[in-house]
Amino acid sequence: MSLLIVGTMAFDALETPFGKVDRIIGGSATYAAWAASNFAKPIHQVSIVGGDFPKEEIEALEARGVAFDGVEVVPDEKSFFWSGRYHLDMNTRDTLVTELNVLAHFEPKIPESYQGCEFVMLGNLSPAVQISALQQLHKRPKLVIMDTMNFWMDVAMDDLRKALGMIDLLMVNDSEARQLSGEYSLVKAARKIQEMGPKYIIIKKGEHGALLFYDDKIFSAPALPLEDVFDPTGAGDTFAGGFIGYLTRINDTSFESMKAAIIVGSAMASFCVEQFGPSRLKEVTADEITARVNEFVALSNFEIRG
Amino acid sequence: MSLLIVGTMAFDALETPFGKVDRIIGGSATYAAWAASNFAKPIHQVSIVGGDFPKEEIEALEARGVAFDGVEVVPDEKSFFWSGRYHLDMNTRDTLVTELNVLAHFEPKIPESYQGCEFVMLGNLSPAVQISALQQLHKRPKLVIMDTMNFWMDVAMDDLRKALGMIDLLMVNDSEARQLSGEYSLVKAARKIQEMGPKYIIIKKGEHGALLFYDDKIFSAPALPLEDVFDPTGAGDTFAGGFIGYLTRINDTSFESMKAAIIVGSAMASFCVEQFGPSRLKEVTADEITARVNEFVALSNFEIRG
Repeated sequence: MSLLIVGTMAFDALETPFGKVDRIIGGSATYAAWAASNFAKPIHQVSIVGGDFPKEEIEALEARGVAFDGVEVVPDEKSFFWSGRYHLDMNTRDTLVTELNVLAHFEPKIPESYQGCEFVMLGNLSPAVQISALQQLHKRPKLVIMDTMNFWMDVAMDDLRKALGMIDLLMVNDSEARQLSGEYSLVKAARKIQEMGPKYIIIKKGEHGALLFYDDKIFSAPALPLEDVFDPTGAGDTFAGGFIGYLTRINDTSFESMKAAIIVGSAMASFCVEQFGPSRLKEVTADEITARVNEFVALSNFEIRG
Repeated sequence: MSLLIVGTMAFDALETPFGKVDRIIGGSATYAAWAASNFAKPIHQVSIVGGDFPKEEIEALEARGVAFDGVEVVPDEKSFFWSGRYHLDMNTRDTLVTELNVLAHFEPKIPESYQGCEFVMLGNLSPAVQISALQQLHKRPKLVIMDTMNFWMDVAMDDLRKALGMIDLLMVNDSEARQLSGEYSLVKAARKIQEMGPKYIIIKKGEHGALLFYDDKIFSAPALPLEDVFDPTGAGDTFAGGFIGYLTRINDTSFESMKAAIIVGSAMASFCVEQFGPSRLKEVTADEITARVNEFVALSNFEIRG
């Protein structure tokens, strides 16, 4: 099975209570591809970068089975740049700088060679860009998952509603779910968002794990309790990449499979936060992933007696 | 097996986003006894009340197998009274009024008939009172669990340290664990508290569930995602009562049993918050409890394939 990822490839500058980096590779599609490449091949990447984006980063992903036919390179411009500072709780952050650069005129182009992908991840982008990518697909994929953020709810709600009508699964964090639905209770929020289109809703709660809603069923996935979260940047995209990468590998979209996929995504995210940027994701081994998934089993496994 | 509960029996006045009650039965030992009485008999209650505490409330608990030999009644004084207002998130609240009344001179007395209890719960009280209760036991119980709060860390840290050295399990919420340990990471916080005495630490995270720490092992229990939390008062005490009631019934204190006990405690707490005060706990049936525990199984059960 093949996987299509649409998202950003960028530079980030980050400040956490543990340190600071001025320029590191980032972007939703970067994190998602690194995570998914542990499970699925080929990965069809759709993005846009400037002439400043390092060749070796592209080559490293290509070596992992990521195709770049759908990644536009604009030689004379700069890549998307985001800079942020995390608070002590690591769940909240301030955006210091956003330079759209090439992203300002991103019109995703799905190459002919990408057609027929059955699993699609739309990373956080303007809903119009997300819709455009979907509309170029000749065949309705088996599963389309999408991320978004509060910014698009503020400035592009009409497009966002349209996009929600075209996808199977929306992945948002708790505050985004509350804003999108106008409901404080996450159960009510999920139900309202389901009425907007997606049958499946994943609500990410950072260090508190994630909830999957489908029909009247709920699955609660724990997060691995960590001594330190070094840098949460990209954890959500890594989660999404691990989630859809695993589903692509087992080629199944049942609720039961999605529960397992959330655990796999959470395991990948737990690696991501161990170092700045995608560094840890680049070196993680299959054995480490298996061991980490087993930690999640131990963490949440119980038996009622008597 | 028999269970000893030391804690308050009181009146509460409550204000939540859903409504207001001026005077309702409350207190840690009240909630804990209602929850535990579904699993264990007899329950040896130790508390103090004023002449205003309703006879029918005592009779209702007696009918559930709760012994009152250790509950002092001071006819001319008033019962402990607490009044609070919850914020929208239901995890934070303001204390409006605290009238200690009889609690100001509470010296718990363990009757001879209570000796030999193997499971002990010390509800949130002054650490000196908790220590006094423990010191009156002729035989070291099999399991002593204790609740406390930030107030005692501010005003009675020496006593609290002493109490921590005498117990097996401390149950606190996340902000209390952080204050007690001086660590933000809950993993580090639990480790530091373990060094103060208790081998087992439960960190309650409200709507995000609870973590159990023992040795280098961690168990993460989900909370049931609820449409509405009507009134969170007593949820922590109900959790504790369900937890130790279940362990008393199966007469086991292994880590595996504690995992199951946390699920049972969480199920009981999920009933508690459905109505004001202990109302829902008084009427919940064994079948409803079994069904609720099964909801937790469905909520957290997954299988990794492929």
